[in-house]
Amino acid sequence: MSVTSTTIVTPQLIAFEHNFPLQNGQTLPRFDLMVETYGTLNAAKSNAILICHALSGTHHVAGRHSPDDKHAGWWDNMVGSGKPIDTDKFFVVGVNNLGGCAGSTGPRSHNPETGLDYGADFPVVTVRDWVRSQALLADHFGISEWAAVVGGSLGGMQALQWTIDFPRRVRHALVIASSPRLSTQNIAFNDVARQAILTDPDFHGGYYSRHQTKPRRGLRIARMMGHITYLAEHGLGKKFGRQLRGNEYKFNYDVDFEVESYLRYQGDKFADHFDANTYLLMTKALDYFDPAAEHCNNLTAALAHVQAKFFVASFSSDWRFAPSRSHELVKALIAARKDVQYIEVPSHHGHDAFLMEDEPYINAVRAFMVNIKV
Amino acid sequence: MSVTSTTIVTPQLIAFEHNFPLQNGQTLPRFDLMVETYGTLNAAKSNAILICHALSGTHHVAGRHSPDDKHAGWWDNMVGSGKPIDTDKFFVVGVNNLGGCAGSTGPRSHNPETGLDYGADFPVVTVRDWVRSQALLADHFGISEWAAVVGGSLGGMQALQWTIDFPRRVRHALVIASSPRLSTQNIAFNDVARQAILTDPDFHGGYYSRHQTKPRRGLRIARMMGHITYLAEHGLGKKFGRQLRGNEYKFNYDVDFEVESYLRYQGDKFADHFDANTYLLMTKALDYFDPAAEHCNNLTAALAHVQAKFFVASFSSDWRFAPSRSHELVKALIAARKDVQYIEVPSHHGHDAFLMEDEPYINAVRAFMVNIKV
Repeated sequence: MSVTSTTIVTPQLIAFEHNFPLQNGQTLPRFDLMVETYGTLNAAKSNAILICHALSGTHHVAGRHSPDDKHAGWWDNMVGSGKPIDTDKFFVVGVNNLGGCAGSTGPRSHNPETGLDYGADFPVVTVRDWVRSQALLADHFGISEWAAVVGGSLGGMQALQWTIDFPRRVRHALVIASSPRLSTQNIAFNDVARQAILTDPDFHGGYYSRHQTKPRRGLRIARMMGHITYLAEHGLGKKFGRQLRGNEYKFNYDVDFEVESYLRYQGDKFADHFDANTYLLMTKALDYFDPAAEHCNNLTAALAHVQAKFFVASFSSDWRFAPSRSHELVKALIAARKDVQYIEVPSHHGHDAFLMEDEPYINAVRAFMVNIKV
Repeated sequence: MSVTSTTIVTPQLIAFEHNFPLQNGQTLPRFDLMVETYGTLNAAKSNAILICHALSGTHHVAGRHSPDDKHAGWWDNMVGSGKPIDTDKFFVVGVNNLGGCAGSTGPRSHNPETGLDYGADFPVVTVRDWVRSQALLADHFGISEWAAVVGGSLGGMQALQWTIDFPRRVRHALVIASSPRLSTQNIAFNDVARQAILTDPDFHGGYYSRHQTKPRRGLRIARMMGHITYLAEHGLGKKFGRQLRGNEYKFNYDVDFEVESYLRYQGDKFADHFDANTYLLMTKALDYFDPAAEHCNNLTAALAHVQAKFFVASFSSDWRFAPSRSHELVKALIAARKDVQYIEVPSHHGHDAFLMEDEPYINAVRAFMVNIKV
């Protein structure tokens, strides 16, 4: 079936009814993953693509959930019939990560051990945990190896971890606007975001749902700040400049500048739907990701057994995950004598560029995907 | 008298007992300015230097307030006997800005019109208001013209505004790590900081002192975020890297990385002593500063009547007030045929570099100051 931006897609919840040990030493008694699939798995099961999401992403990658759904999935420009990740050729799987808040087991879920929602009892999961849960998902579909694992930002970290942890189960990895580990500045911004949430009086130690509330203020501040870091200085300037809402300065703390209005709107929207505990654990997964650490900080050594062919892309104005971070990965892959293609895309959209229409970028992904044999 | 880092200096409060109309249309019935002076005003009153402070600065520029004072003034490495701004030659004036929280009239002060503290009733003052209040301060000392007005960051904006508003009263201006106006990104960060404070339940619409509380959480978040933007990515990486506090990841939201501990400490310290209303109005003064705006965004036109000789300095890794922002000013000064010296200092200390010891920078200021005739 053809998948377009208006195709109605239906997510499915897949249950894993067994213990799932985590990197932090805790064990989940069971878990669900919310997934969405596009296209058809071929008989050889050789055309499967896994899409890994970033901090606030979900399983809903392409199409719409209902005819009056205002927006298509978060990567609808990339995934669909005739699109770079072509659902006429590939069977594409989107998955909401464990610990997420879009249907997979996470802090909002029922904890069978307490009979209450997990809240703060949900463990801090890692990129490695996610990859292991996604491997169980592959087993569920009978997929022994992915034709490709694809992700941007935190999603790119998952794609990279896949190639390290399951070298025989990934033929290609697309690591976009990502990094082999966070910089000090990245960690610093994440901690400020977490502190905004943790110190919100409505956080209640993470058990806010039991108090029929949520730390909206903290989430809003975290998102506003995050949003600035996802955009480029230049792009923000081009879009808003110093444009005023009214005709003159207000001399109070209402909106003076359009950029303030935009950011507050983004913060409010996010605080309305996202879960604070999920935000916290996602940022921790980002901070902890560091595959080179177990190899004396030698990323080349960490990549020694990788078998996937890599596509790495970065964006010139991305200062959250700067091109230099992708260079580290590319250099290590080359040093480890792996197959890697790299494109640095000129853009003024900052980190968010990986989600946007950009011809050279889209074409580069298309060219890479076209050459994948299924 | 020689002024060294251990010299005991005593601030003085200077009262201005008359109406002071502000740019926003309001009028202060009276105000005080807390000042500190170093060196001796000569008979011709031709050796006076005004030091303008940045967002969180004060009148306390050099020396100590008591023998057991742990820290010297905020620019003690720059101001003193034999230092680049040499108090053996110059009479240096440090002043806490109107609206500040270090002794000058501000939100914490008594409002004679209500009999209560100003709190949120304190007006949003501007760089132009500050310059006018500093002109009254000059009058108080009988100083008809400053040998130089000097400032970094927001302080540099005041120095620039001085040359525009009182061209005959400033012979030299040192505009360091500053900008002729904030970028969209700067405004965005300021608004997030303000939102953190304004949405703190302890803010009480700005009348928190009447509730015997203060919006500590909001101030802390604002400062943590601000602090990241004052430091360079590279400098932060060099200082902290991914260094852990303990031996392994904690898998909770306590401190994992040293940088988290550092930022939280900075945030706590700031929240302990700084006033939230002052923080709000200081960031607004930053946002509103835009001398070119009244001249159809033509900065050269705004500078047409300037008579001061300029010294402009920027720092390579400063991304809050990037070198490109200083270039705008230097180009406009050149286009307006003004006298300007410019130095771009290689540094990995980011915006904070203007406060630090750096030989080429210190020497450049020294060379400029040595050539000022008094």
